[in-house]
Amino acid sequence: MSESFRTPAPAGAAPQPGPRADAPLFDRVAFIGIGLIGSSLARAVAHHNLARSTVCTAKDPEHLEVAHGLKLTTDTAPTIAEAVRDADLVVVCVPVGAYAEVAEQLKGNLKPGVILSDVGSTKTSTVRDLAPILPEGAHLVPGHPIAGTEHSGPAAGFAELFIDRWCILTPPPGTDPAAVEKVAALWRAIGSWIEVMEPEHHDKVLGITSHLPHLIAYTIVGTATDLEEDLKQEVIKFSASGFRDFTRIAASDPVMWRDVFLNNREAVLEIMQRFTEDLTALQRAIRRGEAETLEALFTRTRAIRRAIIDAKQA
Amino acid sequence: MSESFRTPAPAGAAPQPGPRADAPLFDRVAFIGIGLIGSSLARAVAHHNLARSTVCTAKDPEHLEVAHGLKLTTDTAPTIAEAVRDADLVVVCVPVGAYAEVAEQLKGNLKPGVILSDVGSTKTSTVRDLAPILPEGAHLVPGHPIAGTEHSGPAAGFAELFIDRWCILTPPPGTDPAAVEKVAALWRAIGSWIEVMEPEHHDKVLGITSHLPHLIAYTIVGTATDLEEDLKQEVIKFSASGFRDFTRIAASDPVMWRDVFLNNREAVLEIMQRFTEDLTALQRAIRRGEAETLEALFTRTRAIRRAIIDAKQA
Repeated sequence: MSESFRTPAPAGAAPQPGPRADAPLFDRVAFIGIGLIGSSLARAVAHHNLARSTVCTAKDPEHLEVAHGLKLTTDTAPTIAEAVRDADLVVVCVPVGAYAEVAEQLKGNLKPGVILSDVGSTKTSTVRDLAPILPEGAHLVPGHPIAGTEHSGPAAGFAELFIDRWCILTPPPGTDPAAVEKVAALWRAIGSWIEVMEPEHHDKVLGITSHLPHLIAYTIVGTATDLEEDLKQEVIKFSASGFRDFTRIAASDPVMWRDVFLNNREAVLEIMQRFTEDLTALQRAIRRGEAETLEALFTRTRAIRRAIIDAKQA
Repeated sequence: MSESFRTPAPAGAAPQPGPRADAPLFDRVAFIGIGLIGSSLARAVAHHNLARSTVCTAKDPEHLEVAHGLKLTTDTAPTIAEAVRDADLVVVCVPVGAYAEVAEQLKGNLKPGVILSDVGSTKTSTVRDLAPILPEGAHLVPGHPIAGTEHSGPAAGFAELFIDRWCILTPPPGTDPAAVEKVAALWRAIGSWIEVMEPEHHDKVLGITSHLPHLIAYTIVGTATDLEEDLKQEVIKFSASGFRDFTRIAASDPVMWRDVFLNNREAVLEIMQRFTEDLTALQRAIRRGEAETLEALFTRTRAIRRAIIDAKQA
């Protein structure tokens, strides 16, 4: 299945975002949660005319108020039940730790034939939490846009967030290809490239590219936070020398990231183990003054940077 | 001593770079090495009219050729002896591991009253390598501009690199304050803020803000480099999710960084130890599913980001 939905990776020229839809792809799209990602998606869906109407709901009344004030969706709804009632696409945009609770409230309230999707960072847990409440004839097409900023909340979103970014879809085996294509078409229309993969494989890959880097960044910034006050002030002052880049990552939403680590525990712990071994080896090379080992590693790592630049992801 | 040379930290408004010098500060400035930092400094010195003439030398004949072609300095010289002969300021701009060899060639060739400075990332080793060859009446004023990019070589430099960046000076106790002030004036004139500290303290602070982050970045990118080919390609593809930010740091000059770790071994190993302990604690919290521990840490780390933004270093 994976191959048929895949957007070819960009080669040379910048990739083409999908064309503006002539007719809306969906009648009514419901967003459960309207933070950075949910509100960016709502803005992009509106901008590209992809739904006849949209609605959002949020646990945090302040978020709902901001969404209303900024007119992020056509309607707002006080409850999940009310929000999803007439929707033919429901997109869950809350931290993955809240999915089980959301599922409880979706249960029995989804329209026949609905497509249920999401934007969460861990996909095995998404299928685990959302698949069981799916009514007969409904479709689960989990999604994960590889996009974001260190800012949070509905006011932080913007419609262009997903342009030239990957969106990974992880439909469980047996999902209707037409439903997958409809979700893929939405993401393409707002500028994303599509990749389809198994939920477990997603969690392994993202464990390396996203979860481990965040874990490391949180740790190093945490280490600095624990320093004596004088030293900490100097670390802030001279942060341009490398530390600063980690603080941006470590400023990401705390609840979202707590949930990521709790919901991709196995993959994160496995790659962390490899990282720790490599760190220990490097520590040993420094202690022993092994100049060649250090230079060889530092030269090898340059190649990946070049590959990322070539893949237009720099 | 420290206080008198310090530029006040910026508060509110952007700091004022020093005025353009009316008369050159130096008669002749010699650059030993003309890579990213050396060539940026040469460009800035020329741009701000800070020397009547400049000269550079480099071990790599290609660097010297590029420097000549781009007219980075008034003159180029084939040897260190020749380059420094008439200079009243000599700035060593090579990886810190090459300082002992440079010192051998400076010995007996420096002009009376010369100020010897550098731009290296480790300062205890700078004083260790350069102080012994200083002739009677000469001054050692080591410097470390907290600025750089992931690119290397004389063509990668630019005159604006040091604007609104800190430059740390680490003169050994007893250094003539007039000599320190002359070097400080040069950095101020090209847009930098000055901080003066002990070499050992510098190495401790930079061990945290710069050397540890680079070490971690090199390690995580190295861990990814060792993955099976298929997985590695996916890591490159989805690198925008966090990994990418580490690859930029891990693309820095390999020889420079090898030398940094070998010349600041104690401080690096000490902070690495703290980091490893913190990482182990976090690993444990993930394994045990300690949601509160994770959220508390991820919330705490946000504060440092805000402090860096407030300090205009973001």
